[in-house]
Amino acid sequence: VGIVGGAGFMGRLHSLAYGSVRAIYGDGLPRVERRRLADVRIGPAQVAAARYGWAEATDDWRDITRADDIDLVDIVTPNDAHAEIAIDAARHGKHVLCEKPLAGDAETAAAMAMAAAASGGVHQVGFVFRAWPAMALAKQYILEGRLGRALYFRGHFFHDYALDPMLPFSWRFRRDVAGAGALGDIGSHVLDLARYLMGDVERVLGRSMTFLGERPRPEGGVARVDVDDATDLLLEFTGGARGSVQVNWSAAGYKTDLGFEVWGDRGSVRFSWQQPNELLFYSCADEPDSRGYRTVILGPEHVRAEAFWPTPGLGLGYADAFAISVSDLLTAIRDRRPAAPGFADGLRVAEVIEAALASVRRRGWVDVARRDLGEASLDTR
Amino acid sequence: VGIVGGAGFMGRLHSLAYGSVRAIYGDGLPRVERRRLADVRIGPAQVAAARYGWAEATDDWRDITRADDIDLVDIVTPNDAHAEIAIDAARHGKHVLCEKPLAGDAETAAAMAMAAAASGGVHQVGFVFRAWPAMALAKQYILEGRLGRALYFRGHFFHDYALDPMLPFSWRFRRDVAGAGALGDIGSHVLDLARYLMGDVERVLGRSMTFLGERPRPEGGVARVDVDDATDLLLEFTGGARGSVQVNWSAAGYKTDLGFEVWGDRGSVRFSWQQPNELLFYSCADEPDSRGYRTVILGPEHVRAEAFWPTPGLGLGYADAFAISVSDLLTAIRDRRPAAPGFADGLRVAEVIEAALASVRRRGWVDVARRDLGEASLDTR
Amino acid sequence: VGIVGGAGFMGRLHSLAYGSVRAIYGDGLPRVERRRLADVRIGPAQVAAARYGWAEATDDWRDITRADDIDLVDIVTPNDAHAEIAIDAARHGKHVLCEKPLAGDAETAAAMAMAAAASGGVHQVGFVFRAWPAMALAKQYILEGRLGRALYFRGHFFHDYALDPMLPFSWRFRRDVAGAGALGDIGSHVLDLARYLMGDVERVLGRSMTFLGERPRPEGGVARVDVDDATDLLLEFTGGARGSVQVNWSAAGYKTDLGFEVWGDRGSVRFSWQQPNELLFYSCADEPDSRGYRTVILGPEHVRAEAFWPTPGLGLGYADAFAISVSDLLTAIRDRRPAAPGFADGLRVAEVIEAALASVRRRGWVDVARRDLGEASLDTR
Amino acid sequence: VGIVGGAGFMGRLHSLAYGSVRAIYGDGLPRVERRRLADVRIGPAQVAAARYGWAEATDDWRDITRADDIDLVDIVTPNDAHAEIAIDAARHGKHVLCEKPLAGDAETAAAMAMAAAASGGVHQVGFVFRAWPAMALAKQYILEGRLGRALYFRGHFFHDYALDPMLPFSWRFRRDVAGAGALGDIGSHVLDLARYLMGDVERVLGRSMTFLGERPRPEGGVARVDVDDATDLLLEFTGGARGSVQVNWSAAGYKTDLGFEVWGDRGSVRFSWQQPNELLFYSCADEPDSRGYRTVILGPEHVRAEAFWPTPGLGLGYADAFAISVSDLLTAIRDRRPAAPGFADGLRVAEVIEAALASVRRRGWVDVARRDLGEASLDTR
Repeated sequence: VGIVGGAGFMGRLHSLAYGSVRAIYGDGLPRVERRRLADVRIGPAQVAAARYGWAEATDDWRDITRADDIDLVDIVTPNDAHAEIAIDAARHGKHVLCEKPLAGDAETAAAMAMAAAASGGVHQVGFVFRAWPAMALAKQYILEGRLGRALYFRGHFFHDYALDPMLPFSWRFRRDVAGAGALGDIGSHVLDLARYLMGDVERVLGRSMTFLGERPRPEGGVARVDVDDATDLLLEFTGGARGSVQVNWSAAGYKTDLGFEVWGDRGSVRFSWQQPNELLFYSCADEPDSRGYRTVILGPEHVRAEAFWPTPGLGLGYADAFAISVSDLLTAIRDRRPAAPGFADGLRVAEVIEAALASVRRRGWVDVARRDLGEASLDTR
Repeated sequence: VGIVGGAGFMGRLHSLAYGSVRAIYGDGLPRVERRRLADVRIGPAQVAAARYGWAEATDDWRDITRADDIDLVDIVTPNDAHAEIAIDAARHGKHVLCEKPLAGDAETAAAMAMAAAASGGVHQVGFVFRAWPAMALAKQYILEGRLGRALYFRGHFFHDYALDPMLPFSWRFRRDVAGAGALGDIGSHVLDLARYLMGDVERVLGRSMTFLGERPRPEGGVARVDVDDATDLLLEFTGGARGSVQVNWSAAGYKTDLGFEVWGDRGSVRFSWQQPNELLFYSCADEPDSRGYRTVILGPEHVRAEAFWPTPGLGLGYADAFAISVSDLLTAIRDRRPAAPGFADGLRVAEVIEAALASVRRRGWVDVARRDLGEASLDTR
Repeated sequence: VGIVGGAGFMGRLHSLAYGSVRAIYGDGLPRVERRRLADVRIGPAQVAAARYGWAEATDDWRDITRADDIDLVDIVTPNDAHAEIAIDAARHGKHVLCEKPLAGDAETAAAMAMAAAASGGVHQVGFVFRAWPAMALAKQYILEGRLGRALYFRGHFFHDYALDPMLPFSWRFRRDVAGAGALGDIGSHVLDLARYLMGDVERVLGRSMTFLGERPRPEGGVARVDVDDATDLLLEFTGGARGSVQVNWSAAGYKTDLGFEVWGDRGSVRFSWQQPNELLFYSCADEPDSRGYRTVILGPEHVRAEAFWPTPGLGLGYADAFAISVSDLLTAIRDRRPAAPGFADGLRVAEVIEAALASVRRRGWVDVARRDLGEASLDTR
Repeated sequence: VGIVGGAGFMGRLHSLAYGSVRAIYGDGLPRVERRRLADVRIGPAQVAAARYGWAEATDDWRDITRADDIDLVDIVTPNDAHAEIAIDAARHGKHVLCEKPLAGDAETAAAMAMAAAASGGVHQVGFVFRAWPAMALAKQYILEGRLGRALYFRGHFFHDYALDPMLPFSWRFRRDVAGAGALGDIGSHVLDLARYLMGDVERVLGRSMTFLGERPRPEGGVARVDVDDATDLLLEFTGGARGSVQVNWSAAGYKTDLGFEVWGDRGSVRFSWQQPNELLFYSCADEPDSRGYRTVILGPEHVRAEAFWPTPGLGLGYADAFAISVSDLLTAIRDRRPAAPGFADGLRVAEVIEAALASVRRRGWVDVARRDLGEASLDTR
């Protein structure tokens, strides 16, 4: 594997996952060797390569996308660089893992999905929360019919890292680079989960807010923010269910609170990243005098947690999500089948965001335009 | 005091409040005598009168609205009977307490507010959650600037009492009687709190769902439901803040979960009826290494809880909210000043619901039409 | 009914209960008239009588224990006055309700229990938490065998009202008046619950702490505290189960946190007064992949909550516990059968405290000496 | 580094920590190479070595304790094998990391501590929870005086993994191998935290329970259990503070709930492994109208969490505790100073358990006999 943009925080997390996946999942997975790390400047690339366990460093990402000794290209650059690298990697027949969101706009995401599909390689987009045990258990309950008919999805992602008015301006506050603000950065995760649990989004109504119109530039002066600090979405799913997603990166008091609930006509599930190793489950089938949300603590008897510790309650952390995710990718490569979430999933999320941004502008409901991927289309749910 | 429609559940709660308010609040309040209880059938009215401590029973509400020995008329009938009784009471110079929502439509509510204002008497609408200590504390923090500028109100009211498909059809499922479904029944409470904490609503976007289109009639057969089981609202407040309200009476697992959060640029508050004696408070002014939501347990050192038990943590219950509310009403009568929430507040909520229903139909944003109450207008916030 | 010591906080709560019990429980209960309130000074007695709804006031408690127009004597004085009044009332054939703990020592409590039993009247001790719906549900699950064999009871009562070093010295800090400190004041409640759920205590090990040896006198100067601020108890129940009780009235951050857990070999229950309207229930019989504590919200489908509001989740408060408790007493009077908890229960708790105090002194295990009440003994569990 | 007993669950966790510590902590730490893994059978040792990233496998632990190419010996065998290996390693001048508890009895632990001290190498005992950020923050608050004088430590460790009567008999249920049951296995962790936060234990009172006297042997038949399923300890600390520790591995519903509270006269802290990334903090210095436990979410601004992710709230998991712990060990080796917790700490815990077991037998308080380690003694707190 080679990694592009690997000198930062995400590079570290991905590197750890490559280093730990075999100890956790055992010998059934393909052996992973951390071959080459690219970043824009060679100095930091070299430091990071040494620290994160990569054999070599480079400042040219083509040394990775086009290298003979690389099978898997991992892209953790800023959003607007994803497309060129991913497409180049795909054209050179590589498997590709790309951080989320795929691209700042759906057109670009579609090009990436087409290229990846055409390449015949395995592709995965880094919606890492989908790999989390609680999400898999929620989905299992839904598929088993334990909630009855799923009526409503209520999702959110709240944080307060952008609340500080002294937080310097960066590419995350620029629409031309990031595509969207909180909606793209954290909202895309929730939208991926919404699709994972409920199916595709048919129609969307959006409303965005920017609480702080200017932020200080690191180099002095101020810059105008043209992305959302918070967005509310109302959703209609293709199957007839309804939902909402609320995201806000200026919500005082919140720290990485991704959460969701699915309400069915026979039960419900609730999840919050504040208690990531728990899933709440309510069943109308329980006896009337002892009905209540069950706090299910994830452990070895649950799918996706079972590869970890043999004792329930020890608890997984954020880094473990990447190991699970990488194990999925390696399994897909081994079995020559699509990984989930694949680039098609990344595109679908981009299309919902595209519709949401249009809805914000038009102040009305907008149908999600789902592009036909032809043979490239993969049912990866 | 006389009560109309008092043979039911709400009659019981109001009766208890009249019986307990003096023991809780002391001699400063006007003395309340439970004089007469009216209900549509004299038998149940007599049983209820005896049980709930009323001197007499009647099956004619005019025996209350027009009686010389009654100063205060308390109306706890189904929604569509409120107006006629309240207006009659006002015309006969009575003080009026009317359960929420004032009326099924804003026109009727406006007529009630005009009549009440013209009467010179004190009028109060039964948004009883506004009287709760946690709400008063939240408001106090906001007014003191402890949240900074209030940016966003996030409210909800979830329950699952209507989830059961065997729950028989009743007036609550008829638009012509109830005005709206979950939006009117439980949503009106949240909208009152939204106004209490944030000010008036300028504009609204609504989306409603009916999960169960038919319900069994008690007498056999089925009837069509034409109100909402759930509604999502996006709000714009006059002061520039934004907000959302979500209500659902078919949310599996929830039992009376009214909740809200207010996010400011320097702090936030959170409340849920699941922990009614607590308010969560987050302050950006706390030291960085020990910042976190404070779980403030309501007790004698907090406004509105201070009349109760001298030891913190003993806890108030739903019935106590009515005692607080009645103490407000009696204080207003004693001091010859408006009560809060008054009929003007009830009207404002009705107007938001009116706009919300229009928005649901038109699938777009709708401005709230706020009627001019002229001299009748009271700033009761 | 007549009440002795009724001018204080407890007098208020008991008065409210007499005023509300009929509205809640209906006509099946005997009619209660608040006839006469006694307190040591006639002025406050008169004020309280007027405020709390009593027809008359007196400064001589014998006007209550010996009055022909009084059937039920309610005693809410400081602990060391309970015995004389209760015994006098019993001798005059009255039903007696006495606040907890019955007395500062077990000998006195035994005399009270003997007198009450000899009188033929109904007697109840004010362990009001036993009347709470969650406790009744816990007991129901145990009796139904849903926990399997009950192995362990873990109880506590934590508060911080005595943490403040400026809190003035009072009778609660004097062993000769109060009998014990936190152990008697709040620990007696937990011990009553322990017996209610698990049966009698056979043997006890105690350890006490006094964190603040002196407190300021209201009149100036300081006084020596000779009771416990905190006590840890280990328990052995007659049936073979084990348990512990921890109490502390100087536990920074706690406000009225009475709580317990019962662990069986097939399940468990947990309760905390911080969420008084919930009982947590864990069943080993649940499916392995969805096992977890169920948060059961108390409502109309649960014993003892069913007389209240028809909608689950509205929630009861501290005052409601007194109404439930009084309804038990009145039902017992009506049906001419013992009330629970009766004076025999009060004695049993006093005996456990007696043994605990001996254990604290001797620093070893002490058998609980259970006095034979002869025919007076009542199985009131 | 070489690892002994590394083919099991703990071997996996330690291996992952060696693999990730550099990526997390950077280049300041000594480089770690996973050289050799020993286990009793060569087959599993080879499989584990390959899977967990070790260069070689062996079935003779002396190939590790006496190898020239090994500086650090990591011991993750069953408890009764710790001593021989650790002492051999120390005698050969190795640094030693030994899993907890050091030994089944205090005598053996003392011999290990003496040997380790004499060796001049760095030694660490695997009380891994001490390395957790919340514990470090609790200690920081205590040292800063934010709780005032620490009065009471309340610790517990509850689990239900031994509740199942079908769980086969193993060495954990044999006193001669394990030393103690729940008290040794999970209680030792809590006792280490008690010492970390409060100082040494002077005196102890213990009471143990065995709920299930026999368990099925894997090979058929049943075997007698002679260790505790649950133990209650009351503690007296040398500084005058008091405390309690409760452990139970048959507590229905619990999954790895290690928790503690420290109550001071000016504030308190609470922790539970159910929310491992949070510390609750209560300060009497907060304003009276907004005082309450603060839920502090651990993140980059907190000691020991700061090496991880830059965004608060992402959350650490169990495996991360091992990385933190190993970083401590490597730092100590680099700086040639003692690691914490060292073998002296492991001995102190063994001495408390020794006293506790004596107390259980004698049913009374027992002074903790603290052995003099002479120059070997290290203040590693």
